[in-house]
Amino acid sequence: MQKLDEEWSSLENELNQFQIKHKDYVKKLEEVESMKKNYSQQFNKLKKKLSYFQETLEKTSKTQPFEQIQDDTISLESMNEKFNERLDYMRHISDTFPRPNGIYLRTILGGICVSILNKEEKLNYKEEYEKFKFRITLISFVFSFLLIFIRTYRVLDASFNFLLVWYYCTLTIRESILVVNGSQIKGWWQAHHFITTVCTAILLIWPDSESYQLFRQQFIYFSFYLSIVQVLQCYYQNGVLYRLRALGEKQDMDTTMEGFQTWMTKGLSFLLPFLFFGYFWELYNSYVLFTISLSESCHEWQVTVLCIIFLVLFCGNFYTTFIVVRKRYST
Amino acid sequence: MQKLDEEWSSLENELNQFQIKHKDYVKKLEEVESMKKNYSQQFNKLKKKLSYFQETLEKTSKTQPFEQIQDDTISLESMNEKFNERLDYMRHISDTFPRPNGIYLRTILGGICVSILNKEEKLNYKEEYEKFKFRITLISFVFSFLLIFIRTYRVLDASFNFLLVWYYCTLTIRESILVVNGSQIKGWWQAHHFITTVCTAILLIWPDSESYQLFRQQFIYFSFYLSIVQVLQCYYQNGVLYRLRALGEKQDMDTTMEGFQTWMTKGLSFLLPFLFFGYFWELYNSYVLFTISLSESCHEWQVTVLCIIFLVLFCGNFYTTFIVVRKRYST
Ligand SMILES: CC(C)(COP(=O)(O)OP(=O)(O)OC[C@H]1O[C@@H](n2cnc3c(N)ncnc32)[C@H](O)[C@@H]1OP(=O)(O)O)[C@@H](O)C(=O)NCCC(=O)NCCS
Ligand SMILES: CC(C)(COP(=O)(O)OP(=O)(O)OC[C@H]1O[C@@H](n2cnc3c(N)ncnc32)[C@H](O)[C@@H]1OP(=O)(O)O)[C@@H](O)C(=O)NCCC(=O)NCCS
Repeated sequence: MQKLDEEWSSLENELNQFQIKHKDYVKKLEEVESMKKNYSQQFNKLKKKLSYFQETLEKTSKTQPFEQIQDDTISLESMNEKFNERLDYMRHISDTFPRPNGIYLRTILGGICVSILNKEEKLNYKEEYEKFKFRITLISFVFSFLLIFIRTYRVLDASFNFLLVWYYCTLTIRESILVVNGSQIKGWWQAHHFITTVCTAILLIWPDSESYQLFRQQFIYFSFYLSIVQVLQCYYQNGVLYRLRALGEKQDMDTTMEGFQTWMTKGLSFLLPFLFFGYFWELYNSYVLFTISLSESCHEWQVTVLCIIFLVLFCGNFYTTFIVVRKRYST
Repeated sequence: MQKLDEEWSSLENELNQFQIKHKDYVKKLEEVESMKKNYSQQFNKLKKKLSYFQETLEKTSKTQPFEQIQDDTISLESMNEKFNERLDYMRHISDTFPRPNGIYLRTILGGICVSILNKEEKLNYKEEYEKFKFRITLISFVFSFLLIFIRTYRVLDASFNFLLVWYYCTLTIRESILVVNGSQIKGWWQAHHFITTVCTAILLIWPDSESYQLFRQQFIYFSFYLSIVQVLQCYYQNGVLYRLRALGEKQDMDTTMEGFQTWMTKGLSFLLPFLFFGYFWELYNSYVLFTISLSESCHEWQVTVLCIIFLVLFCGNFYTTFIVVRKRYST
């Protein structure tokens, strides 16, 4: 009983100490939350002021390009330089403020804050996203491989389509979270995932008709090829991430930056033929669906709609990748 | 030009002041993040110690129930009382520590922290969730009403089913977030939403056959009824939330608590007949699907599977609501 008493006293002591620390913790929590709101507002106000000032500066530069002011005031050129430094600083610290969710995230998740305010954790989250893509792509790889040979069970086709619908929906959520956290992913890649969700959903409700049987095998081969390309993409993106981290840690910025860009260009050059082959396969899918829609036995609206969707996917993918490549090779 | 110079000086001043405040902000951010981790760990350790001590206390109570110790040490009874106070305290502050995501959230969202550490914002999030349910339920109400009369377009049925699949999936995500934030929602209601997603998905891939036409109209009427019940549920849950908030704000805890519980019991009593009618309609759906599956013209596996699903839904809903009601009316 005495032992119990001693145990209890020691436990009470710990709890009392914890209670004191906890009060301080709650106070700091509330302080930081209110700082996040206030400083975000101040930050946005400063950004606006900088943007107005930039307009004024540009107007002045156009009307008076070589203006030198007397004595101890600074020249336009040096003002421009200092201005750009401040702009860089603002860009650099924008990561430390929470951003509001876009309309899509607000619909799915509500107003929950998904901003990660720590650079290390942001990279971790991106890495986790690539791991997720890699795992589901492996499942898709195995599944589509099996479906090349197992052709008679529509329920298996449907399960595969459901997996794809779920996968692309989940990607749209995760990518929206990445965008809130500063990712530079182009709008087309996000739209591409929405459109692919619709595409696979329509495949799901395509009745088990003659036209379906005419296209089904081609689609399975295409999905199989796509999963291989996605594995290559994952390796590329992981390599970029790995080198981005290393860049953040090393001192010697020049050689490492050069090495990073060289690696990126090599990686992209390796990936491009596979990507473009995939895009032209999408164009071919569109063409085959078009010929199917012209046949007399075809009555399903799914054929025409999918034909249009694959054409849109081809155009968007081709154009966006072309822009990225042109920009990359011109620098 | 001088005006520009003055503008720039004043802007630079603001930026410099902001820079100083921002350094302090970043320092506090990192401090609070590390506090969250450390104090969470300490909190969990203390919880374990309390739980071991509870076992020891219970053992001692059983073997020596009336033990009184000498002089200035406390009795078992008073130790029990103090122990329970501390337990309450621990429960009360558990809301201030972030919780890890479950496996489902980790799969959809990744490791992003969805803990809301502010009581007011937790209630706001719950309210937002109820608003979301209300809005989609209204859309479902209108859509199912139209589908009662527009019977010939399978694509409209499919769109309705897609809406339901998307809605129930989104609910599962939001409910998992609520659970991370301390919601006491029973496991069955979460499972119910997963099962309903599967149910509507299967309806989606049910071929446009005779058996489908035999069940389709009944399902549309059922969905219409369900949307009405869900509107009533939303009013009930919003009423609970509103009174919970009011409870948190008022001083006179006794009468308000009593008033709250009376209102809840009244609200539940009003809701129950509608709920049970819905449950028995699920049983009836199961029965009708069973009879359809016995007919000779029925070859689709969807019929049998949906029959089982509706039966499972009936049993789970009936049993869980029965338990909630029994507990509520016995207090
Ligand atoms: C062409 C491609 C390799 C260029 O990638 P990149 O070198 O990372 O190019 P960007 O500079 O545009 O990338 C900027 C950001 O967008 C992201 N991103 C680019 N393409 C992406 C894609 N398809 N999915 C998700 N994220 C993508 C990058 O990860 C990067 O993120 P970050 O800002 O958080 O670091 C890439 O866009 C790609 O893989 N496209 C093919 C898409 C596809 O799957 N097509 C399907 C048919 S085969
Ligand atoms: C029976 C019922 C009214 C009881 O609700 P309640 O009084 O809130 O009961 P509980 O004490 O179990 O609720 C505890 C928590 O679970 C939540 N919850 C209960 N049922 C829920 C449901 N169906 N969906 C989502 N959340 C639910 C409550 O909002 C509460 O949340 P909180 O802890 O964050 O405050 C409710 O469970 C219900 O509406 N069930 C019917 C479900 C249904 O739609 N059936 C469909 C066929 S008609």
